[in-house]
Amino acid sequence: MNEAAITLDGWYTLHEFRSIDWASWKLVSVEERTAAVEEFVAYLEKLNEADIAKTGAHAFYAIVGQKADFMLMTLRETMDELQELEAEFNKLAIADFTIPSYSYVSVVELSNYLAGESNEDPYQNPHVRARLYPELPRAQYVCFYPMDKRRQNDDNWYMLSMDERKSLMRSHGMIGRGYAGKVKQIITGSVGFDDHEWGVTLFADDVLQFKKLVYEMRFDEVSARYGEFGSFFVGNILDNEKLAKFLTV
Amino acid sequence: MNEAAITLDGWYTLHEFRSIDWASWKLVSVEERTAAVEEFVAYLEKLNEADIAKTGAHAFYAIVGQKADFMLMTLRETMDELQELEAEFNKLAIADFTIPSYSYVSVVELSNYLAGESNEDPYQNPHVRARLYPELPRAQYVCFYPMDKRRQNDDNWYMLSMDERKSLMRSHGMIGRGYAGKVKQIITGSVGFDDHEWGVTLFADDVLQFKKLVYEMRFDEVSARYGEFGSFFVGNILDNEKLAKFLTV
Amino acid sequence: MNEAAITLDGWYTLHEFRSIDWASWKLVSVEERTAAVEEFVAYLEKLNEADIAKTGAHAFYAIVGQKADFMLMTLRETMDELQELEAEFNKLAIADFTIPSYSYVSVVELSNYLAGESNEDPYQNPHVRARLYPELPRAQYVCFYPMDKRRQNDDNWYMLSMDERKSLMRSHGMIGRGYAGKVKQIITGSVGFDDHEWGVTLFADDVLQFKKLVYEMRFDEVSARYGEFGSFFVGNILDNEKLAKFLTV
Amino acid sequence: MNEAAITLDGWYTLHEFRSIDWASWKLVSVEERTAAVEEFVAYLEKLNEADIAKTGAHAFYAIVGQKADFMLMTLRETMDELQELEAEFNKLAIADFTIPSYSYVSVVELSNYLAGESNEDPYQNPHVRARLYPELPRAQYVCFYPMDKRRQNDDNWYMLSMDERKSLMRSHGMIGRGYAGKVKQIITGSVGFDDHEWGVTLFADDVLQFKKLVYEMRFDEVSARYGEFGSFFVGNILDNEKLAKFLTV
Amino acid sequence: MNEAAITLDGWYTLHEFRSIDWASWKLVSVEERTAAVEEFVAYLEKLNEADIAKTGAHAFYAIVGQKADFMLMTLRETMDELQELEAEFNKLAIADFTIPSYSYVSVVELSNYLAGESNEDPYQNPHVRARLYPELPRAQYVCFYPMDKRRQNDDNWYMLSMDERKSLMRSHGMIGRGYAGKVKQIITGSVGFDDHEWGVTLFADDVLQFKKLVYEMRFDEVSARYGEFGSFFVGNILDNEKLAKFLTV
Repeated sequence: MNEAAITLDGWYTLHEFRSIDWASWKLVSVEERTAAVEEFVAYLEKLNEADIAKTGAHAFYAIVGQKADFMLMTLRETMDELQELEAEFNKLAIADFTIPSYSYVSVVELSNYLAGESNEDPYQNPHVRARLYPELPRAQYVCFYPMDKRRQNDDNWYMLSMDERKSLMRSHGMIGRGYAGKVKQIITGSVGFDDHEWGVTLFADDVLQFKKLVYEMRFDEVSARYGEFGSFFVGNILDNEKLAKFLTV
Repeated sequence: MNEAAITLDGWYTLHEFRSIDWASWKLVSVEERTAAVEEFVAYLEKLNEADIAKTGAHAFYAIVGQKADFMLMTLRETMDELQELEAEFNKLAIADFTIPSYSYVSVVELSNYLAGESNEDPYQNPHVRARLYPELPRAQYVCFYPMDKRRQNDDNWYMLSMDERKSLMRSHGMIGRGYAGKVKQIITGSVGFDDHEWGVTLFADDVLQFKKLVYEMRFDEVSARYGEFGSFFVGNILDNEKLAKFLTV
Repeated sequence: MNEAAITLDGWYTLHEFRSIDWASWKLVSVEERTAAVEEFVAYLEKLNEADIAKTGAHAFYAIVGQKADFMLMTLRETMDELQELEAEFNKLAIADFTIPSYSYVSVVELSNYLAGESNEDPYQNPHVRARLYPELPRAQYVCFYPMDKRRQNDDNWYMLSMDERKSLMRSHGMIGRGYAGKVKQIITGSVGFDDHEWGVTLFADDVLQFKKLVYEMRFDEVSARYGEFGSFFVGNILDNEKLAKFLTV
Repeated sequence: MNEAAITLDGWYTLHEFRSIDWASWKLVSVEERTAAVEEFVAYLEKLNEADIAKTGAHAFYAIVGQKADFMLMTLRETMDELQELEAEFNKLAIADFTIPSYSYVSVVELSNYLAGESNEDPYQNPHVRARLYPELPRAQYVCFYPMDKRRQNDDNWYMLSMDERKSLMRSHGMIGRGYAGKVKQIITGSVGFDDHEWGVTLFADDVLQFKKLVYEMRFDEVSARYGEFGSFFVGNILDNEKLAKFLTV
Repeated sequence: MNEAAITLDGWYTLHEFRSIDWASWKLVSVEERTAAVEEFVAYLEKLNEADIAKTGAHAFYAIVGQKADFMLMTLRETMDELQELEAEFNKLAIADFTIPSYSYVSVVELSNYLAGESNEDPYQNPHVRARLYPELPRAQYVCFYPMDKRRQNDDNWYMLSMDERKSLMRSHGMIGRGYAGKVKQIITGSVGFDDHEWGVTLFADDVLQFKKLVYEMRFDEVSARYGEFGSFFVGNILDNEKLAKFLTV
C-alpha cells in the first residue's frame, strides 16, 4: 500500500489570463477608456491593500505572445473571496474589452517530502507561515505553468513508495536551491480544484533564469520520468504607469 | 471471461455549466435585468419544489475560474424531464446572456463491488433508495469531475477479474469512508450517455476537503493505476440572495 | 499475413447534430418563427416519404446536454442524396438559427465475422437486406457514438488473425443478443468516410438499456482491450408535436 | 544507421476546405449573389486553364457532413503560386461567405520504396512525370486524409531498415494495385510543410471503393502497426452547374 | 544522475502568426486601407532599423494555407522589447483586421552538445556571437515548427547520459551540415517560455529543401525515437511591394 503525501495548505489562489480585444477598445472614446483604466487601477489598488495587510497577495503581469495579454494572480484566505474578486473584475468596464483565455484554481501548498520530524504545529512555525501565506515579489518577470506527476506504465509516480518519492524529491529540491536568490517559486496544489495537479509560479528579475531552472530540472528523474507539463506563460511586470501606457491606444 | 459489474441506477442527472456574457448583460436596462433575474429565480424555485417533494433534486453553485460562471445540477426520474428542463432554461431571458461551457449527462449509480449478499430487492431497501434518489446538501462548496477506468497496456481495469476489482474498490472505499461527515459524494454513471464513464460530484463545507480526498485517493491503486480524470470544477453555493448580488452589475 | 474482414454495405448515412441559437430565435417575430417551423416540418415530412417508400430512413431526436440540441440521422441509397439533403437543410430558414456541432458520415455495414458459409448472394437475402436497408424504429430514445478498434502496442486488433477476431466478435455478439427486443442497434462503417471507423446508433424505449448494454460490453475483451470510443450522444424522440413545443419560445 | 527514403517531388499542392456561412449568404440580394457566383466560376475556370495547359491541376468537390461545405485542391509548379491563388480566392466576394475549416500544404511525392534500379534521370521518365504532374480525374467522388508513420515504442517506422520498409511497402502497394481502374490515388508529402507527413487524395466513381480500399489496407502491417490517421473528408464533384444549384438559396 | 545540457542564449524571439479578416478589410474605404498599410509598413521599417543596427532582427512571410496569413518573427535583446513590440502591433490599424492564430516565445540557443573544450568566454567568440545574435536572411521561404524531446517509456531523452546524447546529436548535426548553403537554421529554446521545448526556424531559397532536410532527419535516431513535433508552418517572403499587393482588395 502506498502512503499518500501530506500537505500543508495556505492561501487559495486564482490565476486569471485575459486577452484584450484591441479593436473594440479603440472604438470607444478617450473619456470612456480613461474612466475604465482608472476604475481598473482602483481595483488593483484595492487588491494591493490585502498585500499590505498581509491578508492576501496579488501579482499583475503583461504576458508575451498571443496566449494572453495579461495575468492577474490573486491569493486570498478563502475560495469565496477568489470567486467574489473574479465576479468584481467581470463587472469592471475594462472586463468588457477582455477575453478570458486561461485560468487556474489552486491553493499554496507545502508537501511533507522535504519536511523534518517535528512535534510542533507547522501552521504556527513562522518559516512555514511565510511560505503558505507568501508575499509576492515585484520581480521583473513571471512564469506560470501547471503540471502533473505521470501515471503511465512503468513511470507511475503514485505507485512509488514514500521513501522513493522522498529521495527523488530531495534531489529535485537541490536543483531549486541552486537558484535561491535568483528565482522565487510558489507551488500551488490543484488536485480536486483544476485540471492539473499543481501550478508553478516563478518570479525573477532575469527572465533567462526561468529557462535555466526548468531545463536543468527536466534532466532530473522527477521531471524526466514523472513530469507532465501544461502550457507555459511568461510575462513582464505591469505597474500602474506601465499599465496606463499599455492601454493607451 | 470477465464478469461485468452490476449497477443500481437512480435519478437521471444533468450537470450544466454556463458562463455569463457580462458585456451583453451590462448593456440591457436595469428593468430587463431585474425581470430576467426574477424569472430565473422562479425557475430555480420550481426546480426546488422537486427537492421538497423528493421527486428530484438540484444544486446551484458559482464556479471559480474561467471554465464557467455557474453550475446547475438537476436530478430527475426520467431523461425526458432533464431535456425538458434544459429546454425550459434555454427559453428563459437569462439564458440569452449565458454561454454553454460544459455539460454532463449521467444517472446516479451504485455498483455491486461493495454490496453484500442479499435476497432482498435492493430498490426496496431504504438505505439504497436514499443513495439512488439523494437529497443534495446545501453545502458551501461543490466539486465535479468526470472520470474513466483506464484500459491501457497492463493497466486495464476491464480485464481484471471481479475479485480483483472488488478487492481494489474495497480499499478505495475505505479512503472515502475516512471523509464521512466532511464530504458527501454522489457517483453518477455515464457509460452510453456521455464521454466519460462516471461523474463524481462532491459537497463539503470546507473546500480543502476536496483536495485532501482526491489527493489521498490518487495514491490508491484504483486511481494511481486505473484512474483517468477529465476537467475539475469547483464552486461556491449560490442562494437567491447571493445570486441577486452575483448578477447585479 | 492478416485477412481483412469483408463487409456488406447498405444505405449511406449522415448523422447531423445541431445546437439552436436560442437568443437569435427569440429575436424574430412569431410569424417568422411559425413559418420556419412549418418549413422545417415539411422538410422532415419529405424525409419521411423515403421511410414510407423504403428508399431510405431517418430519425429525429432532441439531444440532452450542451453537445447539441437535436440529431437528424438520414439514410439514403447514395452519398449524393445525403449531400443534397444536407444542402437543402442549410437553405431552410430554421438552419439560420442552428449551429453545427457534430456530424458523422458512414454506411450501414454488416461484417463477415458472424456470417455463416453460403453460396447465395447475400444482397438477395431478405434478412440481410432488412439489416442493410433498415427501417428505423420510432423508439423513445437514441444513443450514438463513433468508435475505433485499437492499434496500440500489444492491443492491435488489425494484427490479429481472422480466427481470433471471429472468436472475439462471437462472444461480443452474444452480449448484444441479450438485449434483443430492448435495444435495436445499427452499425455503420466509416473507414475512409469519417474520423472513426464505425458509428453505433442504438434505439430503445428504456434509456437505461443503453448504459447496461455499453457497460456490459466494456468488460468483454473486444471492447476492454480493443475498443476506442469517441463522444456519446443521448436523446429523446421529437415528433412534430414535440418539435413544435420544443421550438416555442 | 537508418537509410532515409528518397523521394521524387512534383507539383506543390494546396487542399482548402471551407464551410459556407449560409445565414449571411441568404441575407444579400440575388444580384450580389449572382455576381459572386459568376466571379467564383470565373476563378475556377482560370484555375482550369492550368489543367488544360498541363501547368497545374485542380479539383473541386462538395464535402458531406459539417467538417466543410467544399474542398478546392490546387496543384502548381511553385509554392508561390499556391499562396497567390489562396490570396486571390480570399479577395473574391464569395470568400466573405465562407469560413476556413481545414487546409493542407504538400507536394506530389513518389518514394523510392517501389522503384527499380535505373541510371536514367527519373524526372525525364514520362511515366514518372505523369505521376508527379498528374492530371486530376473528374471522378464522381473524392476522399482526402492526412497521415503519419508511427514512431511509438516497438512500432517505430523510422527505426526500421530500408529493406524492412521496402518489403512492407511492397505488400501495401499490392493492395493498392487491386483497386487499379477503380480508385486513383495521389500521394503528397508534407514533412516540413504541414502537421502530418503525407496527404492521401483518392478519386473514384464508386464512393464505396474508398471504404473498401482503406479498410483492406488497415489490416496490412504498414497501416495496422505503423499508420496514424488524421481526419477523413469525403465529397461529391461540383461542376459549374452543380455549383450554381448548390449556391442557390 | 543525469547531466543537464548547458546552453548559450542570445536574442529573445517572438514568432507571431496572424490571419487576415478579409471580409472586414474589404468593408473599409480605400483611404482607410491605404493609411493602415502605410502605418504597417512604417512599423516594419522601424523593426528593420534594429536589423541594420544589429540590435535585433526580424522576418516577415506570407503563410500558405489556412493556419495563418502571415508570420512576423522578431528578435530583440530583452523579453520586454518583444512584449512592447507586440503591444505596438496591436495598436496599429491593421491589427484590427487580423486574427491571432499562433505565437511562440523563445530565445536563440546553442547547446554544448557539439561544442569543443575551451577556456574562452564563448560570448566573446565572434562565431558564437554571429549565431546567438543572428542576421536573418531575406530567403524566399521560411519554415517554422516547435518540438520536444520525447520522454516516453524506453524513449526518454532526458534519462540518457550526456555521452549518449552527445553522440546522437553529433550524427544529427551531420545531416544538418549536408544542407549548409541551402538551408539556414535558427534554433530557439523555449523551456519555461512556451509549450514546446524548442522552436526551429528554417530559411531557404528552394522550399523543397525544408522537406528534404526534415524528412532525412526523421530517419535519424534523435528524431525517430526522441522527436515530438508540433505544427509546421511554411511561407513565402513578403517585402513591401508584395505586402502592398497582398493587401490590395
